[in-house]
Amino acid sequence: MSTAPPNAPAQPDVHADVHTADLVVFGGTGDLSMRKLLPALYHSDRDGRLAPETRVIALSRGGLTDADFRGKVDAEVRDSVPVDDPAMWQRFLGRLHHVSVDVGGGIHGGTDEGTGWKTLAGLLAGHEDRDRIFYLASPPRTFGPFCREAHEAGLVTPRSRVVLEKPLGNDLASARRINDEVGAIFDERQIFRIDHYLGKETVQNLLVLRFANAFLEPVWNSLWIDHVQITAAETVGTPGRRGYYDHAGALRDMVQNHLLQLLTLTAMEPPARNDREAIRDEKVKVLRALRLIAGGEVDRFTVRGQYTGAGDLPGYLDEPGSTPPTELSSRVETFTAIRAEIRNWRWAGVPFYLRTGKRMPYRRSEIVVQFKDVPHAIFPGGTPNRLVLRLQPDEGIRLHIMAKEPGAGEVALKPVPMSLSFGETFTARVPEAYERLLGDVLAGNPTLFMRRDEVEAAWRWIDPILDAWKAAAGLPEPYPAGTTGPAGAHELLGRSGRAWHEEEA
Amino acid sequence: MSTAPPNAPAQPDVHADVHTADLVVFGGTGDLSMRKLLPALYHSDRDGRLAPETRVIALSRGGLTDADFRGKVDAEVRDSVPVDDPAMWQRFLGRLHHVSVDVGGGIHGGTDEGTGWKTLAGLLAGHEDRDRIFYLASPPRTFGPFCREAHEAGLVTPRSRVVLEKPLGNDLASARRINDEVGAIFDERQIFRIDHYLGKETVQNLLVLRFANAFLEPVWNSLWIDHVQITAAETVGTPGRRGYYDHAGALRDMVQNHLLQLLTLTAMEPPARNDREAIRDEKVKVLRALRLIAGGEVDRFTVRGQYTGAGDLPGYLDEPGSTPPTELSSRVETFTAIRAEIRNWRWAGVPFYLRTGKRMPYRRSEIVVQFKDVPHAIFPGGTPNRLVLRLQPDEGIRLHIMAKEPGAGEVALKPVPMSLSFGETFTARVPEAYERLLGDVLAGNPTLFMRRDEVEAAWRWIDPILDAWKAAAGLPEPYPAGTTGPAGAHELLGRSGRAWHEEEA
Repeated sequence: MSTAPPNAPAQPDVHADVHTADLVVFGGTGDLSMRKLLPALYHSDRDGRLAPETRVIALSRGGLTDADFRGKVDAEVRDSVPVDDPAMWQRFLGRLHHVSVDVGGGIHGGTDEGTGWKTLAGLLAGHEDRDRIFYLASPPRTFGPFCREAHEAGLVTPRSRVVLEKPLGNDLASARRINDEVGAIFDERQIFRIDHYLGKETVQNLLVLRFANAFLEPVWNSLWIDHVQITAAETVGTPGRRGYYDHAGALRDMVQNHLLQLLTLTAMEPPARNDREAIRDEKVKVLRALRLIAGGEVDRFTVRGQYTGAGDLPGYLDEPGSTPPTELSSRVETFTAIRAEIRNWRWAGVPFYLRTGKRMPYRRSEIVVQFKDVPHAIFPGGTPNRLVLRLQPDEGIRLHIMAKEPGAGEVALKPVPMSLSFGETFTARVPEAYERLLGDVLAGNPTLFMRRDEVEAAWRWIDPILDAWKAAAGLPEPYPAGTTGPAGAHELLGRSGRAWHEEEA
Repeated sequence: MSTAPPNAPAQPDVHADVHTADLVVFGGTGDLSMRKLLPALYHSDRDGRLAPETRVIALSRGGLTDADFRGKVDAEVRDSVPVDDPAMWQRFLGRLHHVSVDVGGGIHGGTDEGTGWKTLAGLLAGHEDRDRIFYLASPPRTFGPFCREAHEAGLVTPRSRVVLEKPLGNDLASARRINDEVGAIFDERQIFRIDHYLGKETVQNLLVLRFANAFLEPVWNSLWIDHVQITAAETVGTPGRRGYYDHAGALRDMVQNHLLQLLTLTAMEPPARNDREAIRDEKVKVLRALRLIAGGEVDRFTVRGQYTGAGDLPGYLDEPGSTPPTELSSRVETFTAIRAEIRNWRWAGVPFYLRTGKRMPYRRSEIVVQFKDVPHAIFPGGTPNRLVLRLQPDEGIRLHIMAKEPGAGEVALKPVPMSLSFGETFTARVPEAYERLLGDVLAGNPTLFMRRDEVEAAWRWIDPILDAWKAAAGLPEPYPAGTTGPAGAHELLGRSGRAWHEEEA
């Protein structure tokens, strides 16, 4: 996406003070850690945003020594990051430690009888003045036990924070349980719930676009906006992951978190300050204003789909590498489209269409704000304005306007994009979402993390849809792999004369 | 400006019917005709927008035969236009005729004793069913006599139109006299007063941008716009032309026509229709709402400048090729800046700054719409939005917005342009202003031409400024050739904390 050279430094350090931190990553040898967290930390280190003494302590059951772990990172991470100075890379490796910890049996139980916790305690002892960050890159069932055991081991200091990866439960009740368990040990101000979509530059830019520019806010309402589309389309299927995905589905996996986050940022009122509470207060207000979709209404406001085999692409039930499909498999949605409505003064009558799916023909996450047509057209052939904020694959903003086709004859209109491509506009490297989010965790800034009431408000809207789908007699609509979803998704908009924005990048 | 190949055809013919016309150009061998009109006509011919029988009849005192004139055009014009088909060029030359006519002595007087008018009458006889267009590319003192003599020669048919080049007088009284004289022969609907700025694509696009896009109109008013700047800067001086320019000056030469036209198009209310009267009705309303600047107020609302020698560049009084400067020369403004105010509901309190000058450091015509700052800034470091419509040298539209500088640290704002460059966006050739305007004359569409009441309303606003300058004791402020005008021009905005938009292309 970026045309900046891979070695270009990101924006220079703007943190006035960088605290020394001990970053304890549970699941520290796992996929997320190796693919996202460690590269992001290396970039932060390279850009001068890690204090000299800051350490990264990976926890796993793996029985690795520090040297083993450093060797693993050297082997698996080095090639994915720009190492222009071997000494800098060695310095980064020197920050890494590994402790084998077994979670779930209590600090004196488990397979290691608590020796892991004792080792960790020893490593952290005497560093209570540092920021201490517990990053839980592990399944949600471990969140409560980990926090309890860390507390019992005496590791939770006043300067501690905990970072929770998604999914945060699979319905309102389980989300509450996790929040209660973690909240029994950590204050809400210490809890950072990650939604990596919030770390994307375009999402940041959505706030800047809306609240640092005067020309948009006057038209950002039901008077001038016809509807909003939020799409997160993936080309991948679920090979080898059906066992997990049977219990997730597109609604839990994408809508409850990512798409609702994008919806709240698009729809929120201007906050009074750019601070942790003011922005999240406004976001929660949007979630609470969502019109509930329950019972028989789901047929009118939601669409479920499941991909079937097409050409070389297998169907969901035939994806290789998983156990044979169960009855649950046939009911799981790999695609969903929803017509959401926000019942407040600004958005009354403006549908927010949400859509996400696997095995779609393109990979794309974007927000499309479709303006109404001009109230009175004096030139023929015009189409309404559209603002497209693309999150991936190429982050950028496009405003589609009507211009005059050059020519000496009658005025002929043509829709043309006015573009802002981050990669082309800025010379600074666009940081990965995790880099920003880890930086915010280290800086203690939770603005881009989900607050408890936010997560639970999202589940409160999702639960009735899940319940109604569960009670429904029918199965998800089939759609051939590699297509834009089932017919119902197009009818959802087509009923009111609208259509999904399918324009190519 | 355009990246389209010079041979790319412009937009295909969109006129349903192309009428056969006899285009009679008085001053047909002059500079405007050779540089602008004939190339524009050739382009129209090439694009299929001239009827097969359409003729171009040049009138001058030159005593040329048709063959002489065709030879002159072949020698002087052919190299400036894309001749991809010699047969097409020969066909174009075949349309050309020349008649020697002496205007001013009555059709039986003059040096030719009326033989020219008789020759012309013979050429036109039997073609009364054609559109007959008299294009007066001649000084304004000839407009009245030409029309009278053409009438006396029986040449003015119901299908006749007359095109008047600027300047249309040098004050309200002389403009009225010309309008009366021409109006005695032609109906107002037959009179096309040219301001070639109105033929520029960006000017056309200003109307499309404003009235074919819904997102701008809600912010196009004093609530959201701080001020507007309209600049027409030239790098050239007046070598060899001081005799003319002593009697013109920047106010008459540029402001009364071009800059006021841009002001009206920027400020006008949305018209009910894209037609000849609806648009011009709205433009006249703006001119009539201009706050008069008279007497002692000129010092506060206007600035006069005259360039002085700097480096290799001579001053106005030293420009070579003219007769020695007179007292009048020292009083002529080669630069002016004016703070105009429109007293209506939409624009109350929004200054429209007009500026034009010779020997400035750049050649540029543009309209800058400066928005107000956000009412409440939650991110530090923002600057207000700005919409820049550039007419030359590179026609295009830029919306300057605030975006987030990529980076994982605190949010840092950066102003970035969202651009629409016509040359880069469209593959069709961008036609020259005269091509469009001649096309409109041939099509009988006067929307982009100045109506009598428009011209006179403009002079009504200009006259008191001219009078006050004439009565003033002081001379224009000197400014060194190659600079952005006298200090007073910067103080005009600086007093209210504003500044001219000097950003480079």
